[in-house]
Amino acid sequence: MLKIVLFGTGNVASHLLKAFQNSAKAEIIQVYNRSEAGLKNLKTKVSTTTDLKQVKEADIYMISIPDDIIPDFVSKIANRKALIVHTSGSTPLLNEAERNGVFYPLQTFSKDKPVDFKNVPLCLEADTPADYDLLKSIAESISTKVFAVSTSQRKSLHLSAVFACNFTNHLYAVAEEICRQKDLPFEILKPLIKETADKIKNDSPKNVQTGPAIRKDQTTIAFHLNQLESKELKEIYTILTQSIQSQHD
Amino acid sequence: MLKIVLFGTGNVASHLLKAFQNSAKAEIIQVYNRSEAGLKNLKTKVSTTTDLKQVKEADIYMISIPDDIIPDFVSKIANRKALIVHTSGSTPLLNEAERNGVFYPLQTFSKDKPVDFKNVPLCLEADTPADYDLLKSIAESISTKVFAVSTSQRKSLHLSAVFACNFTNHLYAVAEEICRQKDLPFEILKPLIKETADKIKNDSPKNVQTGPAIRKDQTTIAFHLNQLESKELKEIYTILTQSIQSQHD
Repeated sequence: MLKIVLFGTGNVASHLLKAFQNSAKAEIIQVYNRSEAGLKNLKTKVSTTTDLKQVKEADIYMISIPDDIIPDFVSKIANRKALIVHTSGSTPLLNEAERNGVFYPLQTFSKDKPVDFKNVPLCLEADTPADYDLLKSIAESISTKVFAVSTSQRKSLHLSAVFACNFTNHLYAVAEEICRQKDLPFEILKPLIKETADKIKNDSPKNVQTGPAIRKDQTTIAFHLNQLESKELKEIYTILTQSIQSQHD
Repeated sequence: MLKIVLFGTGNVASHLLKAFQNSAKAEIIQVYNRSEAGLKNLKTKVSTTTDLKQVKEADIYMISIPDDIIPDFVSKIANRKALIVHTSGSTPLLNEAERNGVFYPLQTFSKDKPVDFKNVPLCLEADTPADYDLLKSIAESISTKVFAVSTSQRKSLHLSAVFACNFTNHLYAVAEEICRQKDLPFEILKPLIKETADKIKNDSPKNVQTGPAIRKDQTTIAFHLNQLESKELKEIYTILTQSIQSQHD
């Protein structure tokens, strides 16, 4: 078994900890966190520490902490022999350590909602082919979706995920608010939301676009804009309508 | 069995035709269409006509034709005794006929993709309680999700569906395009899209918002805006980021 020390106890870290419990290839032998608070619920499950000097030797140090403190933190452990990987979508492959890598799970994680890790895409990068293969072997032990993704690709992937996940969720929130104002239960929209996501399983979203924008149905578009009271929502409606039309021109 | 004549052969009409094949309460006894073309594939399944004079007597005339020609069309059959309903989200309850109603299925339909009609919300409205009950009885014979929705509510529902479905699908298309430009397979985003839609099954989208906008992570936001070359996409990124932040302030 390959040995991993995990740094951090946030959403991604806690899902990784669970995922590796079922790995036949690697085990997390220790969790480091800056403060005791995050470690409280882990003490019965795994060895923990808040002291960098107490961090055990391992094959891989996996760093799952806020993006903006990653480079600083890595410099503190860069003298170790382990392959040092971070789990961040927006951080480049670092070069502080002897051996550097990236182990980026592309998924939206919530603390309380379990995730089927077998379906979480793992985006890997490493300095050397040997270390890439090492990461691949442990990645394949917890997921069926493993991808080689360069720093430049990962940068775009992270951006595209903001559109496909964060912005999409906000459009759900806008729709919920429009319903709420008319005493309509949000339940009524859920089958539509599900079907919209299902439709692109086997087809390009561009090919299944529907609605007044792509039909250039100006009557309905004007009617909708007239209904929206918020200036911000009018702008969102207008720019997304334009964007649909320019993509299909 | 209640008798229905269906007018139109588009996406909604063809899914309704299939759905009523399994109804124990009502049957479609005839399909009318303006042109022969749309009826070609139906002739072996149901009686068809292109001649309004040949339209049979029935309990319900169900009109599933483009929104902009509904009022004109209804005036041509308004002298009939049947309850006349349309299936449009953006058309008010009409008053041309003796008995008027609305039978609006809130779903995105594709010609080729089968839909489980039991889960399609049916939004009903009628002039009288008796006709509402009539519509409810046939609606409940094909779907488990039946709602009373007024003209004013349906107007908002249709608008909210544009956000939750049409605009959401376009964000998927934007994400796909960003991936394509970096030779990333769109497959890699699909689990994220699925999880984003799954997350709101049991939670308000407002409560599960994630990403740089809600974290007010200005470094990542600036980094993303810098990556986007298209002026339109920059605008979409900016206004959606603002909208997330103003919803959560």
